[in-house]
Amino acid sequence: MDWREQVHRPTLVVNRSRAEQNIKAMAAKAARSGVRFRPHFKTHQSALVAEWFAGHGVQQITVSSVRMALYFAAHGWDDITIAFPVNLREIDDINDLADKVKLNLLVETTEVAAALAEKLHTEVGIFIKIDVRYGRTGIAWDRAQDVVDLARTLSTSEGLSFRGLLTHAGHTYHIHSKQARAEIFKQASERMQNLRRALLDAGVVAGPEECLLSVGDTPGATAVEQFKGVDELRPGNFVYFDAQQYQLGTCREEQLAAAVACPVVAVHPERNEIVLYGGAIHLSKQSELLKSEDDSSGRMFGYLTAASADGWGAIEPDHYVSRVSQEHGVARVSTEMCRRTKPGDILCVIPVHSCLAVDLLDTAITTDGDLFALDL
Amino acid sequence: MDWREQVHRPTLVVNRSRAEQNIKAMAAKAARSGVRFRPHFKTHQSALVAEWFAGHGVQQITVSSVRMALYFAAHGWDDITIAFPVNLREIDDINDLADKVKLNLLVETTEVAAALAEKLHTEVGIFIKIDVRYGRTGIAWDRAQDVVDLARTLSTSEGLSFRGLLTHAGHTYHIHSKQARAEIFKQASERMQNLRRALLDAGVVAGPEECLLSVGDTPGATAVEQFKGVDELRPGNFVYFDAQQYQLGTCREEQLAAAVACPVVAVHPERNEIVLYGGAIHLSKQSELLKSEDDSSGRMFGYLTAASADGWGAIEPDHYVSRVSQEHGVARVSTEMCRRTKPGDILCVIPVHSCLAVDLLDTAITTDGDLFALDL
Repeated sequence: MDWREQVHRPTLVVNRSRAEQNIKAMAAKAARSGVRFRPHFKTHQSALVAEWFAGHGVQQITVSSVRMALYFAAHGWDDITIAFPVNLREIDDINDLADKVKLNLLVETTEVAAALAEKLHTEVGIFIKIDVRYGRTGIAWDRAQDVVDLARTLSTSEGLSFRGLLTHAGHTYHIHSKQARAEIFKQASERMQNLRRALLDAGVVAGPEECLLSVGDTPGATAVEQFKGVDELRPGNFVYFDAQQYQLGTCREEQLAAAVACPVVAVHPERNEIVLYGGAIHLSKQSELLKSEDDSSGRMFGYLTAASADGWGAIEPDHYVSRVSQEHGVARVSTEMCRRTKPGDILCVIPVHSCLAVDLLDTAITTDGDLFALDL
Repeated sequence: MDWREQVHRPTLVVNRSRAEQNIKAMAAKAARSGVRFRPHFKTHQSALVAEWFAGHGVQQITVSSVRMALYFAAHGWDDITIAFPVNLREIDDINDLADKVKLNLLVETTEVAAALAEKLHTEVGIFIKIDVRYGRTGIAWDRAQDVVDLARTLSTSEGLSFRGLLTHAGHTYHIHSKQARAEIFKQASERMQNLRRALLDAGVVAGPEECLLSVGDTPGATAVEQFKGVDELRPGNFVYFDAQQYQLGTCREEQLAAAVACPVVAVHPERNEIVLYGGAIHLSKQSELLKSEDDSSGRMFGYLTAASADGWGAIEPDHYVSRVSQEHGVARVSTEMCRRTKPGDILCVIPVHSCLAVDLLDTAITTDGDLFALDL
């Protein structure tokens, strides 16, 4: 059955063969560099898509919340890093998880390390969160002594097993030059290596294998061919990519593996606009600057494309969602697209940020017509 | 038990007495004007909060989706307007609803009216969606002939019972002057009355009672004392209000009835920042311009306040969430607030847009400690 016949509300549409190609390519690149591939599952949040990763050899995963860890643990994944600073308020769930799976947590202060050591029932792996420049959280790369002190505390804390240093160089998300993104990757890697050297010099660890270096962001991971100097790679977005990545140039159009199928509820030919059932609670409010500047606001909430039996049509820069409110999306389109569209039709939006759209939607369908729940 | 002890993850906190005061005041104002009060339930999306409305005499409600209508129908509400253009793809659910409750739908074209007339099993009420200036969707106020033609089609369509005209003057959401918002309310009301007069003149309806005028937006509804010239009022946001409404001046601080309680996961005194477990998937990516311009981006994603046993603390303009990513919120705060905050604490964010935060969160708690699910 044509997948479109099963769409009644805003629904994630996934092109499985593209997603698998994206997984395969990243897994192969990690293997060529000899680094561990521990992809971030926050992008897809799906036990089904997780199986596709398993099919390409993935056994170790990254998630962004305790709840997500519980979900994947319930689906048989047993080696999980929660790449978010420990939330001490969830200690009971963390203890449950640690009983079931090989769990790694992120810590950046001795206070949190002490609280964990006191409250954990089972040993967990600990990475120190490093801020290589992004400025969100973690110990800054130039505070080596703080890293040494915390690693020393960890190495003597019962129940905490120091595993290494972890960073997310999220500042690559706004860099349009591939070379500049590759340089950020290199800089992040060097800053992590410098910190490991400080730990070795201080005698906190006996060898590099006792301090793994874990990095991961899709714009960086797609910008380099060799993952030099690090041990573990944790990108997530690359499984689907999205309009933001496409604009950044981290993917080609034929790598876009997810869209949001939206029913059309009104057509306004007098102003070349189509109103979608698909708004802020489906696409998110994340916007991107338009490449073509024909809109006064200069921003868009996703590219609008046709829906076809095998997925969606080509991106046309002048077809995009220009405004969203709670349930409504208003798209600016050509006269021609207005003419051929009527209420009840399905159109596809390439969302600005696929991770957020996935989180917001509750149902997905592959272009082969397999429905699956996004019930996390 | 102190409500804070029950918060482990980002959770909506509701001050019931404030919410009830907000409901009571709006219901009383509608009653004084002699207009029907049909509040929009998309803001709270909760069967429990709905009971508070019932306690103040509300029997007829507005929702923004078929799913929301099904939820409230399952909780005993039997007179529901879905204030969103009919999504023909949900016709099966619409038929189910129409069997159970008194249902009103929104139509703006004869094509959709014809499709509905063909597919509906049970009679439903139909409002024509009017665009009084907002520019999102509906027939524009100055196209009276289109309204007359559609109303005439509706009045002769089997199973469709024409009820009146409905609009949402959403352009009030960006107007900081109360007087200007009151003028928009007046203009919207006059434009609706002009259209009703056109229907009377054309003989499509025999008297004004056959064409109800329904309006509703919180910034407009709070700006006027008398709802002159309309029959029905549908505001929603006023039950909680939010940072956007506070900045607009549609509410006072002591009317803010909802916040998002977020666990603290890191404190960065070196740059006066606190990292919250509370990001784009909890607060939404909707931002508001800062009133005080001390941040380079000039935008914020909510005010950050202390959590207290009876709710949350006072708004301080220099305490706000300045950045959000998927799970992280980064707040800029004073040195003093940094000093007294540690990981594991709970802080409260007054969200920019309460409707979106409610939609994103899955659990709520009243400041009296009553947990309730946001399971829609």
